[in-house]
Amino acid sequence: MQNFDYMTPTRLIFGKESIVKLPEVMRSLGKRVLLTYGGGSIKKIGLYDRVNELLKDFEIFELPGIQPNPKYDPSVLDGVRMCKENQIDVILAVGGGSVLDCSKAIAAGAKYDGDPWDLITYKVKAQAALPIVDVLTLAATGSEYDCGGVISRTETNDKVGYMDPLLFPVCSILDPVYTFTVSKKQTAAGCADAMNHTIEQYFVADSTLLNDGFCESMLKSLMVNATKCIENPEDYTARAEMMLCCTYGCNGILSLGNSYSGWPCHGIEHALSAYYDITHGEGLAIITPRWMRHILNEKTIDRFVKYGINVFGIDATLPKQEIAEKAIDATYAFFESINIPMHLREVGIDESRIDEMAHHIAVNEGLENAYAPLTEEDIKKILIESL
Amino acid sequence: MQNFDYMTPTRLIFGKESIVKLPEVMRSLGKRVLLTYGGGSIKKIGLYDRVNELLKDFEIFELPGIQPNPKYDPSVLDGVRMCKENQIDVILAVGGGSVLDCSKAIAAGAKYDGDPWDLITYKVKAQAALPIVDVLTLAATGSEYDCGGVISRTETNDKVGYMDPLLFPVCSILDPVYTFTVSKKQTAAGCADAMNHTIEQYFVADSTLLNDGFCESMLKSLMVNATKCIENPEDYTARAEMMLCCTYGCNGILSLGNSYSGWPCHGIEHALSAYYDITHGEGLAIITPRWMRHILNEKTIDRFVKYGINVFGIDATLPKQEIAEKAIDATYAFFESINIPMHLREVGIDESRIDEMAHHIAVNEGLENAYAPLTEEDIKKILIESL
Repeated sequence: MQNFDYMTPTRLIFGKESIVKLPEVMRSLGKRVLLTYGGGSIKKIGLYDRVNELLKDFEIFELPGIQPNPKYDPSVLDGVRMCKENQIDVILAVGGGSVLDCSKAIAAGAKYDGDPWDLITYKVKAQAALPIVDVLTLAATGSEYDCGGVISRTETNDKVGYMDPLLFPVCSILDPVYTFTVSKKQTAAGCADAMNHTIEQYFVADSTLLNDGFCESMLKSLMVNATKCIENPEDYTARAEMMLCCTYGCNGILSLGNSYSGWPCHGIEHALSAYYDITHGEGLAIITPRWMRHILNEKTIDRFVKYGINVFGIDATLPKQEIAEKAIDATYAFFESINIPMHLREVGIDESRIDEMAHHIAVNEGLENAYAPLTEEDIKKILIESL
Repeated sequence: MQNFDYMTPTRLIFGKESIVKLPEVMRSLGKRVLLTYGGGSIKKIGLYDRVNELLKDFEIFELPGIQPNPKYDPSVLDGVRMCKENQIDVILAVGGGSVLDCSKAIAAGAKYDGDPWDLITYKVKAQAALPIVDVLTLAATGSEYDCGGVISRTETNDKVGYMDPLLFPVCSILDPVYTFTVSKKQTAAGCADAMNHTIEQYFVADSTLLNDGFCESMLKSLMVNATKCIENPEDYTARAEMMLCCTYGCNGILSLGNSYSGWPCHGIEHALSAYYDITHGEGLAIITPRWMRHILNEKTIDRFVKYGINVFGIDATLPKQEIAEKAIDATYAFFESINIPMHLREVGIDESRIDEMAHHIAVNEGLENAYAPLTEEDIKKILIESL
């Protein structure tokens, strides 16, 4: 078991009508609020009006239009400028993981005099950040319970993850009802995202019975509940359990003391969505089973066997290789069952830039140190298999 | 799924030699330290000297001699007086759950002008508390990662649990090596304590696939690892995993969104250790299977079936009643296998005060509202069965 230094100070207010506590939470953080959100779905579900009504005693400045795979330019830069010009006290992110990730970059940038890209790329360590509160509308990324984010810079095809303990949300308000209107496509992508977060923590050299059990429980619950959510989008219990599962995805609680996997599928997927701006969860679902098949070997087979038996209930008396292959097939079949497009071509990616992406990933993602090390050649093979 | 409002801000520094970070942690909290500890085992293992050496730039005041089932008089009262007289900035608890629980009561009492008992019994809500840091030497109670404690008042046979978010440790330093010298008896009792914490969160009316999986993983890991720790007290990996399991026992992470069980075994056991000052984990191990057998009925049987299949691997094709009974037998057999005395008489409790204890529990513990409601008569039966 590895040493670790862990903390997640975020307060989770979870459940129906949990938003009524928003004014109390915000009052302790200040008066001048930057409200960040995306394309307007929060207006359709009445959440925008509700937030404004609850915060009518606050001074609210708005940064709308934050896109999926949130962009450094204009969103982060605009947000930082607005915070500085308006002496913002607190950022209120209302939306999904992209709005939150963008808000985290803004929170750090607002307290820094230079180019915020310095912070995101760790050239400079952030010394302070504005506090962040969020009202979540999508179960997927886990950004509501971690201190990281991912920001894309279109002109350089960069999609960069950054983390800083200063960036834990102070409070995340999680009402599963706000996810009732999430489309089947986005529900499935959110499930795939959270499943992959779990898989990235499960396929490691050194784990524990406890963590393996936590991860297996996550995967089983996500599959059951996402399926229910897609069948009946207003199934409160399924939406709620899926939301809580996703919340645990990225803050480390599933793998304290495990060795580090290198998060290889994320490393690969980040290039896909940086180059083609695809839906992150779909990219992960496409990559995951191909990555699994590529790394299955004598050294890794025992993890696949455990995964197959405990997550998919595969007969433990079968030969190891058969269990492992059935487990990978079952992973693929599950993603297919929730209608995720399982080929890159279906999401608009052809072979034309595979070499370029494989090179970009090999240079930037450190996957030669992953649990199962990946060279540029390996990455290229996985991408070609995924076409 | 139930609404919840959850936060655990405690920083966990876990692993070999994690104590080297102690000075950095303490420096941010102040100079004047109340060092609390128990009967001197920390001196035997060299930890007392190590702490003093690491904190040689601090002003340290000592409160030694905190007993198991920590006492209001003298420990809490002495500690509060010392904090006030010496303008203590921070409490450093070095020991197990009793030292921590006592330190939490002191931390609140130090910032209150009246009788600290007012806070412990919720007559008055604490408005502030001293910060607490701990170095843990026993895997058991989970007090290192929750905001609660249990304090005993001998003259009234009260053993009272209290909780306040002000009382989360700022930081818990968890080095499994410090648990190498824990006796087989205390290792087993610690395991039983953490298992019962999990069971109290698992036997509920409303749970989730996710939480059930988390709890089942905890129970399986605790049984495997405690057995290894008892066989080989210096098995670092087993000590480490057991320590992390115990840490999750009481902060709620295993049951977010579950309905509340009423913690019936704790309600019953608190009277046993208040009246007879027995080892808490042993009391819990004795009560748990008798409580299980007592509440097994048509309404509760499905929980027992799930527990039996998923925790003990009992054949799912057997009749429900048989699975449930085998599960209870397996629980009992496990505790026996780690040499816990499984009868109250073996820990010095006879029938003489059973009526009195049953009445005390029925009046004070609210078990008529538990998952499986318990009357005074039920409690008496469970106690008699446990003799």
